[in-house]
Amino acid sequence: MSGETVADIGEFGLIDRLTAALPEHVRAGSSSIVRGIGDDAAVWQVERRGAQVITTDALIEGSHFRLDWTSWEDLGHKSLAVNLSDIAAMGADPVLAVVTLGLRGDERVSDLEAMYRGLGGLALRHNVTVAGGDIVKVPVQRLVSVTAIGLAPADGALLRSGARPGDVIGVTGTVGASAAGLSILQHPERFRDSTTAPALIRAHLRPEPRVEAGQLLAEHGVRAAMDVSDGLAGDLPKILGASGVSALIDETAIPVIAAVRALFPDRYLELALRGGEDYELLFTARPDDFAAVAREAGTQDITVTAIGEIHPVDGTEPELRIRRGSGAIERLRPRAFDHFG
Amino acid sequence: MSGETVADIGEFGLIDRLTAALPEHVRAGSSSIVRGIGDDAAVWQVERRGAQVITTDALIEGSHFRLDWTSWEDLGHKSLAVNLSDIAAMGADPVLAVVTLGLRGDERVSDLEAMYRGLGGLALRHNVTVAGGDIVKVPVQRLVSVTAIGLAPADGALLRSGARPGDVIGVTGTVGASAAGLSILQHPERFRDSTTAPALIRAHLRPEPRVEAGQLLAEHGVRAAMDVSDGLAGDLPKILGASGVSALIDETAIPVIAAVRALFPDRYLELALRGGEDYELLFTARPDDFAAVAREAGTQDITVTAIGEIHPVDGTEPELRIRRGSGAIERLRPRAFDHFG
Repeated sequence: MSGETVADIGEFGLIDRLTAALPEHVRAGSSSIVRGIGDDAAVWQVERRGAQVITTDALIEGSHFRLDWTSWEDLGHKSLAVNLSDIAAMGADPVLAVVTLGLRGDERVSDLEAMYRGLGGLALRHNVTVAGGDIVKVPVQRLVSVTAIGLAPADGALLRSGARPGDVIGVTGTVGASAAGLSILQHPERFRDSTTAPALIRAHLRPEPRVEAGQLLAEHGVRAAMDVSDGLAGDLPKILGASGVSALIDETAIPVIAAVRALFPDRYLELALRGGEDYELLFTARPDDFAAVAREAGTQDITVTAIGEIHPVDGTEPELRIRRGSGAIERLRPRAFDHFG
Repeated sequence: MSGETVADIGEFGLIDRLTAALPEHVRAGSSSIVRGIGDDAAVWQVERRGAQVITTDALIEGSHFRLDWTSWEDLGHKSLAVNLSDIAAMGADPVLAVVTLGLRGDERVSDLEAMYRGLGGLALRHNVTVAGGDIVKVPVQRLVSVTAIGLAPADGALLRSGARPGDVIGVTGTVGASAAGLSILQHPERFRDSTTAPALIRAHLRPEPRVEAGQLLAEHGVRAAMDVSDGLAGDLPKILGASGVSALIDETAIPVIAAVRALFPDRYLELALRGGEDYELLFTARPDDFAAVAREAGTQDITVTAIGEIHPVDGTEPELRIRRGSGAIERLRPRAFDHFG
């Protein structure tokens, strides 16, 4: 293990080392679709006609990650994962990413190689080419900013605006584990004896984008979708607002894993509704289409759960209501996470 | 003028205000090619087949800009300009950009609106749609990171690797003015009485990407091109290395404006060769093609100057040599700017 730093090898040396740390198949120079790497821009041979989707998401040290909490490899994974999650939420097929790294210069090259192994491993699994990027010096906090491009599904991208009354509301996987993991990282002393805590921390540090699930949704007539980054009560109102509809969800139907319920008996529902960074897909579909999605998902090891139903707006604006375990129905106030709030 | 800050209106309020600050034609919602803005990703209806180019470049407070030197409007302009310059260097037609803003929260909303007016004004002139982006909170230094996409020219993008012996080496516009402007910003007391200093500062703060020139080069058989961001002696060796050729340039032919020569009589050549951020295009072409480029450029108010010639490698590696005013020929060592060096 070398103690070599970025300042020792410089920007151009670092680019060579990071490129070498990527799996060959995702490197721009080896990919059949990208050439011109090391040039002013990367050239992408577009092989398929149709619409494309583009998204960009940055992780900032001190705001989104702490190096005493995350490994560099997990940070690389997550920086791409949060972008692929947005591509997945459109039902699209991710193909290309560019990466901007903001570094101080005192980072160990071996740490950054680990970061690129994390990013490259995820890219490889989803057949994404890392087409280059930019490395810049930062005075204080580091950053990783990724822009990803995907090919939209043939029948059109899954927008937030397609939900209609009568639709079933579904969610992939489970919600709340990432927020539980963050809570454990913030208060490790409370969870020292927990055997399940590491898995929850991992859910926070190394989320898996639901790319296959997104494509499955698009293939089965799903009408609206988005990824869950602000908790169900933060995100579902965005679909409701964009579609001009209301929703009733069922508290007891919300999929929360046993470890979260066990470690946070009084708060697990709060974590599911108001937590964040689950990176699962929230969607709406006609009941028949939902049934088809659920059937097909079962054969692909994807879990989907029905958590409620879309209703017409009754009054002046979209409402999100929840049926509690007691049977009582309450209105949930939308509250998306706002870093500046 | 309101003293309202980002923290007062929050992320979602800011997105609305910045969108409104863009000219209507470049807003994703009004553009014919982009929809789905405000969704997980922007959807881009690709209207033309063929290759695309993608580039990303970030400006970091303290590394690339200082708010006591630049206006917010110029910062917005420059953040897009440096990316469009890379698209121009490929001979491509820019179409789309996404913007990541890293803010502390204490910025005035009116300043950020000015920034978006600067960015939007440049986008409008080049018919670029601002397709969305990401706003994140930063603990200390602010940042603007832009990713831009363009359509490659029909005959292929202009790469750095196409230079061949016998080619004329050309450059658009003039070089050294941006580095002169930076020098003035660093030592204002030395230039207090200069009437030309403001124009040089402007060259540094508000560079113009040579988009039309890049397309003209591509249409006239130019073989290699790049944009000048590290000075001629920093950048030309990148073409030489990628193409496996050497070059001889003529000191007296290098286009440096009179104001730079007058304010920096002992250093103007150093500024042209070793300065940076000119964002002019450096290219090579067969003599006949160069003549055609020069003729056509003249009709479009674009200046191009022949500064030297490409030679075969004589020895083991590409060399850059310069003929001094005295007639003596010297070797120039490549030295690209390295933030971490």
